[in-house]
Amino acid sequence: MRPAIDLNSDLGESFGAWRLGDDEAMFALVSSANVACGFHAGDPATMLASARLAARHGVALGAHPGYRDLAGFGRRALDTSPDELAAELLVQLGALDGAARGAGTRVRHVKAHGALYHRLAVDESAAHAFAEAVAAYDPMLPLLGLPASALERAADATGLRFAREAFVDRGYAADGSLVPRGEPGAVIDDPAAASDRALELAETGGITADDGSRVDLAPDSLCLHGDTPGAVAIATAVRRSLEGAGIAIEAFA
Amino acid sequence: MRPAIDLNSDLGESFGAWRLGDDEAMFALVSSANVACGFHAGDPATMLASARLAARHGVALGAHPGYRDLAGFGRRALDTSPDELAAELLVQLGALDGAARGAGTRVRHVKAHGALYHRLAVDESAAHAFAEAVAAYDPMLPLLGLPASALERAADATGLRFAREAFVDRGYAADGSLVPRGEPGAVIDDPAAASDRALELAETGGITADDGSRVDLAPDSLCLHGDTPGAVAIATAVRRSLEGAGIAIEAFA
Amino acid sequence: MRPAIDLNSDLGESFGAWRLGDDEAMFALVSSANVACGFHAGDPATMLASARLAARHGVALGAHPGYRDLAGFGRRALDTSPDELAAELLVQLGALDGAARGAGTRVRHVKAHGALYHRLAVDESAAHAFAEAVAAYDPMLPLLGLPASALERAADATGLRFAREAFVDRGYAADGSLVPRGEPGAVIDDPAAASDRALELAETGGITADDGSRVDLAPDSLCLHGDTPGAVAIATAVRRSLEGAGIAIEAFA
Amino acid sequence: MRPAIDLNSDLGESFGAWRLGDDEAMFALVSSANVACGFHAGDPATMLASARLAARHGVALGAHPGYRDLAGFGRRALDTSPDELAAELLVQLGALDGAARGAGTRVRHVKAHGALYHRLAVDESAAHAFAEAVAAYDPMLPLLGLPASALERAADATGLRFAREAFVDRGYAADGSLVPRGEPGAVIDDPAAASDRALELAETGGITADDGSRVDLAPDSLCLHGDTPGAVAIATAVRRSLEGAGIAIEAFA
Repeated sequence: MRPAIDLNSDLGESFGAWRLGDDEAMFALVSSANVACGFHAGDPATMLASARLAARHGVALGAHPGYRDLAGFGRRALDTSPDELAAELLVQLGALDGAARGAGTRVRHVKAHGALYHRLAVDESAAHAFAEAVAAYDPMLPLLGLPASALERAADATGLRFAREAFVDRGYAADGSLVPRGEPGAVIDDPAAASDRALELAETGGITADDGSRVDLAPDSLCLHGDTPGAVAIATAVRRSLEGAGIAIEAFA
Repeated sequence: MRPAIDLNSDLGESFGAWRLGDDEAMFALVSSANVACGFHAGDPATMLASARLAARHGVALGAHPGYRDLAGFGRRALDTSPDELAAELLVQLGALDGAARGAGTRVRHVKAHGALYHRLAVDESAAHAFAEAVAAYDPMLPLLGLPASALERAADATGLRFAREAFVDRGYAADGSLVPRGEPGAVIDDPAAASDRALELAETGGITADDGSRVDLAPDSLCLHGDTPGAVAIATAVRRSLEGAGIAIEAFA
Repeated sequence: MRPAIDLNSDLGESFGAWRLGDDEAMFALVSSANVACGFHAGDPATMLASARLAARHGVALGAHPGYRDLAGFGRRALDTSPDELAAELLVQLGALDGAARGAGTRVRHVKAHGALYHRLAVDESAAHAFAEAVAAYDPMLPLLGLPASALERAADATGLRFAREAFVDRGYAADGSLVPRGEPGAVIDDPAAASDRALELAETGGITADDGSRVDLAPDSLCLHGDTPGAVAIATAVRRSLEGAGIAIEAFA
Repeated sequence: MRPAIDLNSDLGESFGAWRLGDDEAMFALVSSANVACGFHAGDPATMLASARLAARHGVALGAHPGYRDLAGFGRRALDTSPDELAAELLVQLGALDGAARGAGTRVRHVKAHGALYHRLAVDESAAHAFAEAVAAYDPMLPLLGLPASALERAADATGLRFAREAFVDRGYAADGSLVPRGEPGAVIDDPAAASDRALELAETGGITADDGSRVDLAPDSLCLHGDTPGAVAIATAVRRSLEGAGIAIEAFA
């Protein structure tokens, strides 16, 4: 049994007049926050407010860079070259770190967003460009991402620490992949069921797949979605359940 | 007579497929480059390329933040609140500093762009918010700007170093203000005339105004425009003239 | 007593993943919808969806152009020239009309948004440039705006029809101006009170000012805010109250 | 021998302070101009100026929609759904048509830009969504594009006229595809050679491929690049050569 686990969530996803998610509530529940850096979400005032929330709640502030696509919220694949990716990472990471300095804190980790997250799971050259850009920024910054991904391999090759995340509200197939959205068991929206899965992940390092087999994930962090209607209820239940089992909620970074 | 003076220019003002100015030539001629940070110009690849040019030529890299107005190139006044200005400064400064880290260098100073430059010359509360945001980012970063401006007063109040700039290619009125564009003597586009004014400014700390009187400016830096047709010719002539008079070209920062 | 009045609301103000207001409910309650055209809000999918809602509910679709300022939602003054304003109007009007054609309808009127709305109330040259651009697009398109404004004068001079709007949820001073937000009586958020004001406006053409005097507004349309928490409740109450008094809700256009 | 042929070029690709190509010269040489609609290039003032140039020179104004990607100039593939594509087409087409109305003209045809052009050549569902959106806007608007492409098939299925274009400055393989950039013979930058190819295309409807075989293209229009250093020289030579051979330069639309 692990004495501590990280809870992370993608927050700071508002933009200007548009609000997304209940950041006030979520920052009080997680130990790591992945905050949008202005390319797919996050205007400067939101970035600064998010950094202040992180500082106030003792939450590790993470950069959550994405594709330059506000209209698509970074969810659409964009065919950027590895060089462009590296430049865009440096600029987004620096931008959030600038807001962090304004709030008296600093960026502690990096997790990619949306379509970029998915690409970095499988595109080796993009993953290497990304990891090298993070290392050029600060070689002590850890990456957070999908276990056994191209990004994990790139982090290893670059000498960056890689933290693995697992999802408490998504079903897993026997091979460790997520059950695709739209299929039965893809999304767990019951707080009690999500809590049970969080406990299983934290206590055993694995999860029961949709065919009943066991998948080993060895997560350093459990991801909680921040922008769904039940997000706060699930996060509250998961946190209470873990703490009730004597597992501390602590940032991995 | 001063043994050394800084030459600064606004560079890195391209965006994506669109080129502006001859940065390759200009980075070889100046000692300080004010580089756009993505809000009025400067995509990530351009920011990274500019930081690399600065590193290669030993030029001090400065952040050149502006209003969030790509279509207007930051030249249109935008009624942002001081809080918004502060957040936008932190994000832009951090963004360029991120690109700088990718190029093995760091941001060394800050100079505002366009309509923001003009506002910070006269708007005390905006100037204070701006200076305080720079200080929150790094209290050792100097500001570059207009002598006797609201920003100079804000820098003094905040404890930031303030470097004064003078323009070698603009005419001055007796009160130290620039002759408005469109009036006779507003713009000096003859390289020899610009060189003479650069020498006068560097050697005496002042300039002859349009009425023949003398204006004391005590400049730490001479600004060369980077995006006009004759920019490289003027910069070449000014640099040669100063060096021929035994005045070193050195970054103020 | 008037047999009919228009109810208008600013709708279609979402952008990408970000939702604002309950457009499904509001389109069923109003007779005219002012829909954002992409510059301060409104991505193409939202514009098309709004045009379809307008077509389905028999609501007159209006263009709601604003400043090019997504991060500021068009609420910040931006110093555009009259020529820029005209070009931006033509492009935004055409953009929404393109979406309208895709939905089998057309744009029926134009109402400016946010900081542009306020500017066109007082800036005669901007108002003329705006009105002339609308007339160049289609001289039969009416404008909707503030009574006795620069825009009304520009519409008269250009030969455009001008429809006057009054606000059911804002207090008026004796001179016909709105009580500034933040002062007592500035905002009416009680549905019953708003309904009473709507009835008074529709039946008498005027409203009781905050000092008890009567202000004549001769409104062609009553504006209902679409993005406040109580928007749907107020709109429902106003519509029921007007219809209960035998006043038809009909688009002015 | 054909009595007339169209010359088209992608123009109006500036944005704000950034200029691209010599539009003043090119509008005087072509019969059809494909003008950027604001998503990959083209601010409102540029769109209006382009429409005015088209009207002044009697050039057919075409909409040149692209992906929403200013930083990438629409050259990067972006995974938009067919529904998004349709909405984005309607908005871009309407936007340019709005500028056209302001200049006393109208949009006469549609040609996709960059990565979208390439996608519509092979992606049948995207091509159908695009063609249907054009037809919903105006069923009389012709499309301009690559012969034997998915877009030509979609135009046929939708009942839109499709005009085929050939490139005077690109080499062709025996199967009618373009020789990839970077390979020998990919780009023809000699004005005389380009003129010869233009004549061959106009007089015979085909071109000699890189292996000496003949490719039949039956072009309705010859495309001239507008933003390369030699663009004006090539366009001038091609036009003179065609007119010298008695072939009129006339818009296909």
